[in-house]
Amino acid sequence: MVRLKTMTRARIISSLDEMQQVAEEVRLSGRRIGVVPTMGFLHAGHQSLIRVARDRTDLAITTVFVNPAQFAPGEDYEKYPRDFERDRILAEEAGTDVVFHPEAQQMYPHDYQTFVEVATMTKVLEGKSRPTHFRGVTTVVTKLLHLTKPHVAVFGQKDAQQAVAVKQMVRDLNLDVEIIVAPIVRERDGLALSSRNIYLLPHERNDAPVLYESLQLAERMIEAGERNSKNLISAMSSLIEWKKSTAIDYISIADAERLEELDTLRPGNKVLVSLAVMVGKTRLIDNSIYTV
Amino acid sequence: MVRLKTMTRARIISSLDEMQQVAEEVRLSGRRIGVVPTMGFLHAGHQSLIRVARDRTDLAITTVFVNPAQFAPGEDYEKYPRDFERDRILAEEAGTDVVFHPEAQQMYPHDYQTFVEVATMTKVLEGKSRPTHFRGVTTVVTKLLHLTKPHVAVFGQKDAQQAVAVKQMVRDLNLDVEIIVAPIVRERDGLALSSRNIYLLPHERNDAPVLYESLQLAERMIEAGERNSKNLISAMSSLIEWKKSTAIDYISIADAERLEELDTLRPGNKVLVSLAVMVGKTRLIDNSIYTV
Repeated sequence: MVRLKTMTRARIISSLDEMQQVAEEVRLSGRRIGVVPTMGFLHAGHQSLIRVARDRTDLAITTVFVNPAQFAPGEDYEKYPRDFERDRILAEEAGTDVVFHPEAQQMYPHDYQTFVEVATMTKVLEGKSRPTHFRGVTTVVTKLLHLTKPHVAVFGQKDAQQAVAVKQMVRDLNLDVEIIVAPIVRERDGLALSSRNIYLLPHERNDAPVLYESLQLAERMIEAGERNSKNLISAMSSLIEWKKSTAIDYISIADAERLEELDTLRPGNKVLVSLAVMVGKTRLIDNSIYTV
Repeated sequence: MVRLKTMTRARIISSLDEMQQVAEEVRLSGRRIGVVPTMGFLHAGHQSLIRVARDRTDLAITTVFVNPAQFAPGEDYEKYPRDFERDRILAEEAGTDVVFHPEAQQMYPHDYQTFVEVATMTKVLEGKSRPTHFRGVTTVVTKLLHLTKPHVAVFGQKDAQQAVAVKQMVRDLNLDVEIIVAPIVRERDGLALSSRNIYLLPHERNDAPVLYESLQLAERMIEAGERNSKNLISAMSSLIEWKKSTAIDYISIADAERLEELDTLRPGNKVLVSLAVMVGKTRLIDNSIYTV
């Protein structure tokens, strides 16, 4: 088995056909493929996912594609940060073998009209604020899985609901791929890494760690015996609202697999505490999973 | 390359995991897979599709699955004809190597919630009469393609809109499979073969060839220079209404690839003339494609 890990430069592929042919050849040669779908503007969080793919498979593919289908009109599709040369270097540094960088017009030609939708669990949390977002995510992930033919695909826990929706979609559609969800990578002060953090003004950046602090507060309260979701959410809210640049979109305490909101925590519950907060004009998300 | 074509008995697989493993092993051995998705109750039309798969690939898989997701409440899901032993024999006779016969509960477990939808072209024709039908079709075809991992999938021209929707879906989602659409097989009197023909009472069976006769009439009129869709549809209607057991659901003259209705035929147009007619209590469909 030839390992491609010794390549210093990653192979850059933008053609859909070429990507699919390379993937098919690699599979036929008996090697395993791992893919990390990203929207680019990579940071250490993405790099941790690429390392998982690299360590688990023979060929690590990083996809860099800002997916128009997961942005609603008025969201930040146009101004979403893009810097391919930087992405290429960071992906290589983390050990990717291939960077797949397709064009939007190839991915969504003018007569494009097929969508993959996970019905129930994409209507809550992020889906409530962004009603067509997850349809765009599951559609592009299906396309990227067909194009890169991986044995393993790695997603970040940062986008908790996305990870749950993708797992459900893969299970429902019988895709033959293992989904790995890798932990959130944080700054020293606790702020979860995100490509959108670059939007933050200095005083907003100072306020932003409050998302993680509120999750830690919830964890301490659960450990101390608090079982009422309202009390947890109210304490988190108070902490966050103390920071002037913040405006809470939602705080949710839900079943970690089915994403159904929980009023009361019960022993054995695997609980996803998640939140979305505007910090200035930037919408940040964060989450933690606890087993009660 | 080992040909499995000499097997007299097909391998019967009902487990989803087993099907996917077999498919992966066959692919890894360098052999090509062809699949024919059916709802069972096979006839010579299905057999012609199986022969195409057998002739084009090394392993022909026939799937036999009455897909609940493509029936609306009140349609004939419960009473849709089923006879697996008969299907097995007919599929073997046509040269299938594998019959994949999954259970509905395995295909759609209780928390199932993912659907693949082709947006525009499934809203017309059959989609107008059966609004959730094609969502069920494209969803189950996606699942079956993931489970059987074919190089080639064969569909019948009889379900013209289904074939167009599946081709669009495969193109949009970048599925690495070639879709072949094989011609309609007819009885001597022109009636298109259909599993639903067994519902017809004797006098209805006598009336049923009028669907094909109306298509032939349209063809003769187009050849004679008729370019107005209204005139074509009106002539077809008159011919069909002459038969007492019939009630027309729709007659459509549309672009054969985009399924947009055409008022006027123009030179070079590839035209799908399609119709759905109740014959007694049985809904029959038929179609022809002409290049003007």
